[in-house]
Amino acid sequence: MNSSTMEVGRKLVELCRQGKAMEAINTLYSPNIVSIEAHSMPNMPQRMQGIAAIRGKAEWWEKNHAVHKGEAEGPWPHGDRFIVHFKYDVTAKAGPMANQRMTLDEAALYTVKDGKIVQEEFFYYMG
Amino acid sequence: MNSSTMEVGRKLVELCRQGKAMEAINTLYSPNIVSIEAHSMPNMPQRMQGIAAIRGKAEWWEKNHAVHKGEAEGPWPHGDRFIVHFKYDVTAKAGPMANQRMTLDEAALYTVKDGKIVQEEFFYYMG
Repeated sequence: MNSSTMEVGRKLVELCRQGKAMEAINTLYSPNIVSIEAHSMPNMPQRMQGIAAIRGKAEWWEKNHAVHKGEAEGPWPHGDRFIVHFKYDVTAKAGPMANQRMTLDEAALYTVKDGKIVQEEFFYYMG
Repeated sequence: MNSSTMEVGRKLVELCRQGKAMEAINTLYSPNIVSIEAHSMPNMPQRMQGIAAIRGKAEWWEKNHAVHKGEAEGPWPHGDRFIVHFKYDVTAKAGPMANQRMTLDEAALYTVKDGKIVQEEFFYYMG
């Protein structure tokens, strides 16, 4: 295993636990980061590329959700990839789920290259 | 998402929770299953292929570990893949860890094709 995989994973989990997603993006992500959701959403493509687009996505998320509690478990590494399990207790502030409190339970698969995260893929079920 | 991904994942989690790993292999795995560990082990290659080899691996596991408690969380799906989080409280019966009680905490990434699991990859850290 590339030792930096575990190191990057630990930093990501630590920052996410502190609610510092934007700091994680700014310090751990490659300029060419690829981000892939399990599904496309209204107004959001399933696949986005580039640090500017991913910062925009994170800003949208922070603006549109009140986070009551966030948990991150892991990282579990394998070669140049690692997995993290996220659980968020949130209330949506806008959109079709506005004012609904819900639990977001998902796993994410990250790929690391030259010490930076170059891809993130989100795994979750929408019933 | 291929709807069978979630269905196969749910069956796998259910059987693992019941301690029925061999039944999961026999009913959900492709004859050409590829199984990849995060690391190679003494006497076990990192990559194994074929249902016979994977049955042998599961038999070795069952023979060499006393499982006090097993938990499976998930599945979290994305396209034709899904992730499961496993946590086992075990005591090794043989080998360098004989008589040691330990927690095995890992994530697994599965790939499904034509309703069968064709690949499993295990993510974990060995300090």
